[in-house]
Amino acid sequence: MYRLHIANKHYSSWSLRPWVLMRELAIPFEEQLSAFDPDSSWTRFRDFSPTGLVPCLVDDEQVVWESLAIVEYLAERHPGVWPADSAARAWARCASAEMHAGFAALRSQCPMSCGVRVRLERHDEALRRDLARLDELWEQGVTRFGGPFLGGEAFSAVDAFFAPVAFRVQTFALPLAEASLAYVERLLALPAMQQWYAEALVEPWIDPQHEAEAEAGGTLLADYREPRPGA
Amino acid sequence: MYRLHIANKHYSSWSLRPWVLMRELAIPFEEQLSAFDPDSSWTRFRDFSPTGLVPCLVDDEQVVWESLAIVEYLAERHPGVWPADSAARAWARCASAEMHAGFAALRSQCPMSCGVRVRLERHDEALRRDLARLDELWEQGVTRFGGPFLGGEAFSAVDAFFAPVAFRVQTFALPLAEASLAYVERLLALPAMQQWYAEALVEPWIDPQHEAEAEAGGTLLADYREPRPGA
Repeated sequence: MYRLHIANKHYSSWSLRPWVLMRELAIPFEEQLSAFDPDSSWTRFRDFSPTGLVPCLVDDEQVVWESLAIVEYLAERHPGVWPADSAARAWARCASAEMHAGFAALRSQCPMSCGVRVRLERHDEALRRDLARLDELWEQGVTRFGGPFLGGEAFSAVDAFFAPVAFRVQTFALPLAEASLAYVERLLALPAMQQWYAEALVEPWIDPQHEAEAEAGGTLLADYREPRPGA
Repeated sequence: MYRLHIANKHYSSWSLRPWVLMRELAIPFEEQLSAFDPDSSWTRFRDFSPTGLVPCLVDDEQVVWESLAIVEYLAERHPGVWPADSAARAWARCASAEMHAGFAALRSQCPMSCGVRVRLERHDEALRRDLARLDELWEQGVTRFGGPFLGGEAFSAVDAFFAPVAFRVQTFALPLAEASLAYVERLLALPAMQQWYAEALVEPWIDPQHEAEAEAGGTLLADYREPRPGA
């Protein structure tokens, strides 16, 4: 049985990617959640992850500690991880790698914080460029390979790579093209995404650093966590 | 025939990765070099690369625009791109993905600038941590899979991912463990690395922004380019 190390569902966008992929593809795994803690999590996470980061997949003796490597590891062992069509698969890997190392403005200005809603006060040029690139990329993926997912008919790893963006769009009401917002709705409606979201809302941990980052660019409008932090 | 779009050999660490991999594995390709220009390169590069970035591999109709995706695209078509051993391959993909999105201090403080030598005046904590992680990772790769390369006996994509680091170690005389420095020497001695380096030294372009970044952290000791810039 695989063991997948993740962190808080409320904040950990990287954890969400392999988690939602494995749930949607019905690949069995045991979830091991370690909550963030600014003072100790890097050291504690080093106990199971060589970089001190999550996610980290453990398969008996094999430790697989990077999201893209986890996806390729699973792709060698399970069908459906990447699109079956060769052109769609090449495109999906490009888009996933672009998400892995790019979209810096989106990631820093609109961090994942599933349960809150924030009115963004600023859209700087870098963020606007990231959003324009998202529209371009998603439009291309959905139309070129037939949709409704980015690599074609079935949800695959490239959709998992953009799954955290769906929560960010929801939290910050990001201005995207209509087709992009429809794609976000499709992601948010997936059973695995709904499960992740429900579990994020009832987590008992509040990490001040993540909270501050989510509210840095705007005004907090709502917090759907239960019990509400600080209440 | 593949067409590989790259930028200046003197500066473009991302271009080096697929280039050195394809050369060392004797995968034929046509090189298409577009020189950096702070004012226009993003726009010009958008003509062939959807992100405006290099490298970008073109295979007839298929455009593959991300380094890791290029590697996986080649791995589906040519032997030896990744280590044949399953454990070594999983490790190699993790290490490559870690390089792809990590080592931020190393990448920003010690940019690739093949032909110069710089005495680094500062080693901040973030850079020290990146160097310690390099030592740890390389020691693990070389010893666990038998060496002399990271994934075992043969040069593979994971070595290509660290190839720019070899030039950085040479330029900035970075303090690494003895075993790491020996691995750097092995990389620098590869025929493809020597060809890249020789071609970098005779490039006619000087990009002021890249030059300034390379010298930002220290003192310029030597410049082996011919003719010397500004001379």
